Amino acid sequence: MTTQPARGMRDFLPDDLRRRDYVVGVVRDVDERYGFDPLETPAVENLDTLLGKYGEEGNKLIFKILKRGEHEASGQADLALRYDLTVPLARVIAEYQATLPKFFKRYQIQPVWRADRPARGRFREFYQCDIDTIGSASPVVEVEQLSAVSEILKELGFQDFIIRVNHRQVLSTLLTNAFVPPEQHSLVLVVLDKMDKIGPDGVAKELADEGVPEDVRNRLLSWIGAAFRPDWLNWLKRQFTIMDGPGEAGFENLREIVELSAQTAAADKLRFDPSLARGLAYYTGAIMEINVPDMAGSLGGGGRYDNLIGTFLGREVPACGFSLGLERILVVMSERKMLPESVVRGASDVMVTLWNSETRGDSLALATSLRAAGLRVDVYPEPDKIGKQFKYASGRKVPFVAVVGDDERKNGTVTIKDMRTGEQVTQPRAEAGQYLKQRAMSNEQ
Amino acid sequence: MTTQPARGMRDFLPDDLRRRDYVVGVVRDVDERYGFDPLETPAVENLDTLLGKYGEEGNKLIFKILKRGEHEASGQADLALRYDLTVPLARVIAEYQATLPKFFKRYQIQPVWRADRPARGRFREFYQCDIDTIGSASPVVEVEQLSAVSEILKELGFQDFIIRVNHRQVLSTLLTNAFVPPEQHSLVLVVLDKMDKIGPDGVAKELADEGVPEDVRNRLLSWIGAAFRPDWLNWLKRQFTIMDGPGEAGFENLREIVELSAQTAAADKLRFDPSLARGLAYYTGAIMEINVPDMAGSLGGGGRYDNLIGTFLGREVPACGFSLGLERILVVMSERKMLPESVVRGASDVMVTLWNSETRGDSLALATSLRAAGLRVDVYPEPDKIGKQFKYASGRKVPFVAVVGDDERKNGTVTIKDMRTGEQVTQPRAEAGQYLKQRAMSNEQ
Repeated sequence: MTTQPARGMRDFLPDDLRRRDYVVGVVRDVDERYGFDPLETPAVENLDTLLGKYGEEGNKLIFKILKRGEHEASGQADLALRYDLTVPLARVIAEYQATLPKFFKRYQIQPVWRADRPARGRFREFYQCDIDTIGSASPVVEVEQLSAVSEILKELGFQDFIIRVNHRQVLSTLLTNAFVPPEQHSLVLVVLDKMDKIGPDGVAKELADEGVPEDVRNRLLSWIGAAFRPDWLNWLKRQFTIMDGPGEAGFENLREIVELSAQTAAADKLRFDPSLARGLAYYTGAIMEINVPDMAGSLGGGGRYDNLIGTFLGREVPACGFSLGLERILVVMSERKMLPESVVRGASDVMVTLWNSETRGDSLALATSLRAAGLRVDVYPEPDKIGKQFKYASGRKVPFVAVVGDDERKNGTVTIKDMRTGEQVTQPRAEAGQYLKQRAMSNEQ
Repeated sequence: MTTQPARGMRDFLPDDLRRRDYVVGVVRDVDERYGFDPLETPAVENLDTLLGKYGEEGNKLIFKILKRGEHEASGQADLALRYDLTVPLARVIAEYQATLPKFFKRYQIQPVWRADRPARGRFREFYQCDIDTIGSASPVVEVEQLSAVSEILKELGFQDFIIRVNHRQVLSTLLTNAFVPPEQHSLVLVVLDKMDKIGPDGVAKELADEGVPEDVRNRLLSWIGAAFRPDWLNWLKRQFTIMDGPGEAGFENLREIVELSAQTAAADKLRFDPSLARGLAYYTGAIMEINVPDMAGSLGGGGRYDNLIGTFLGREVPACGFSLGLERILVVMSERKMLPESVVRGASDVMVTLWNSETRGDSLALATSLRAAGLRVDVYPEPDKIGKQFKYASGRKVPFVAVVGDDERKNGTVTIKDMRTGEQVTQPRAEAGQYLKQRAMSNEQ
């Protein structure tokens, strides 16, 4: 019998988990500071809730659960594992519409599962950290979300990230003005979306392979190559000769989002990128994606999707969301050694030794009083050579060891050893908690 | 299409989730104070890892996941949802034995899934909060766990809980001395285990129905009725004429656990209960269970299980664990109104109003500076009648509203309304964060 976790899934041992919990803690704190409320939905959804929401490819990647009682016999599945956090949110909005506030802002940090082929950095169980705002079409929604994710990344120590922004209607206008035939729209968008991976030459080649005429290719590439111009948005708009109402509104919306962001944590972080599409079918307005120089993929992304909630609710509701990729953020932070060392602390501040069977009660009483002082305390569980106990504490990186031997019992004291300096002091038993608390706190600084 | 969560599963809306997070936070803090390290395992395990570990009934309640690619066609399942936190722990011990410390103490707070028939208080997805100590047979292990769960319950505000304790070898000795025929042992234990539900008369009747002779019944009931005697353990031992080595060791072990617990948070909380069995097959030593007067089931339980890890590891490893039932703890706390009101706070400390399209930048800049002061800030997302904005804040129970109108813009000020008193003050913009932070903090006290 194998003892490995299931393929594409991971066990998180303590050090790893403390690193993850640190990042999740920052995400949660900032989300709360932006007025988002927490939400959790079940890991398991009715299969019908998920089917047809993620396209042909997505359908195949849904983990399906056998119907109770039927099991292997019929092979019938009626449940499935959560595939993302957005479809469950849409279901929640529809189910509890009477009790939810007019503007529902929620954050949700939970795992999702995909029956994908596992690969380096691609898992079958991974965490998403989402914020979504339901009920308002105002650009303030996008601005607040861009600010929140910027603040999260800055608090984690990222300085060099940028957030690329685009707009579905700007993309449509771009294709129209480049004279891309309507039947090639979605094809061309898929190729354009690869710009940050394969560069302009790669995009030009793929477009040629797909039979996109040379003059169309040249127009597209000259416009897209203008991204990162200081006056990008106005410049691009001036290039366009065909401009309908939705196109105008898209440009105006994107301009507002960028201008208003100057007042927020996202100031100086936004870059217009007319090639950004992120699976266009889903988005109806702004599209956003975070990048850092040393990672090919994104650290997260999102956009406005005003149609999805309607699938469940029967009427359209404006919605916009941003999803951070916890796994990728951790990869980059780990490679760059950005995780503060204090995050991976041992399980305890102090280990209490155990002298012999008679003194177990004294060791436990000492542990009780040290814990009352707020310390994290381990007790060596069985009588053992004192040298082995010190060695164990040292291997576990416990900074202090407290000894209650025969002398200490007689005198009502405790001997405390600082494991990093080797220094030993003897303290009255009643004062040991206060003493150690101060020492432990000064070490953390 | 239904928008309800899958049968037996629950959505946790913000207020509910904040209550749960509060309890989980206390559990986590205390577990850390007792030197337990965090661990998380995947929601999905290989089916082979789980099958055969939970008995005939358990096997049927495992949610099975269809094999990738095969799906409905073959009905073949190769994965399954986590059924408890103990079997995954045993797998982890076997897989990472080279890197784990000699005494591995972990806490794990994650959901488990059971394909049970849903009923009031019985869910198909629910959380377990487990602590386990691997690698030591010392009674200090049980004592530390009993102290940790006692401290958790006390911090949550429980005063009237008791923890019933028993021992597998004491149970065996009890059955032998009552002359229960060996072939009736497991049957009798199942009936005895119902003592706290059906009482002595119910137990006597069921034993009679099962064909247990009257003299055997009388001996069993007189001994079990002696629970809660101040000198219970010694008294019971004196009744027994047949006592083998394991029986002696069981009594001694239980005596040590209770005596040593006097030095810990579990002092005065332990009660010997010779009827407690908790599905004996699993346990090899001490058995423990928490009860409160106003709930028929237990709030948690555990015991020593020295054989399970061996199933994965190939050699026996001493192990002991305690599992708290988050759902039941929440039910009792909610019925008794034990949850502090401050737990269910609104999503924000302050809401910034939005005057009109021109002032959006000012509102966002104010929000940025208030968040920098550590406040949780919501921004009303779109221009609206100011009365509606105040009403919205009031409905959301936001304690303060900050207004930047035309006057405030001109003077560089902000008007702050205390929504509970109606009191309004005007503050320089730069000082608003500090002012509100102090007000918000004094409200929390």
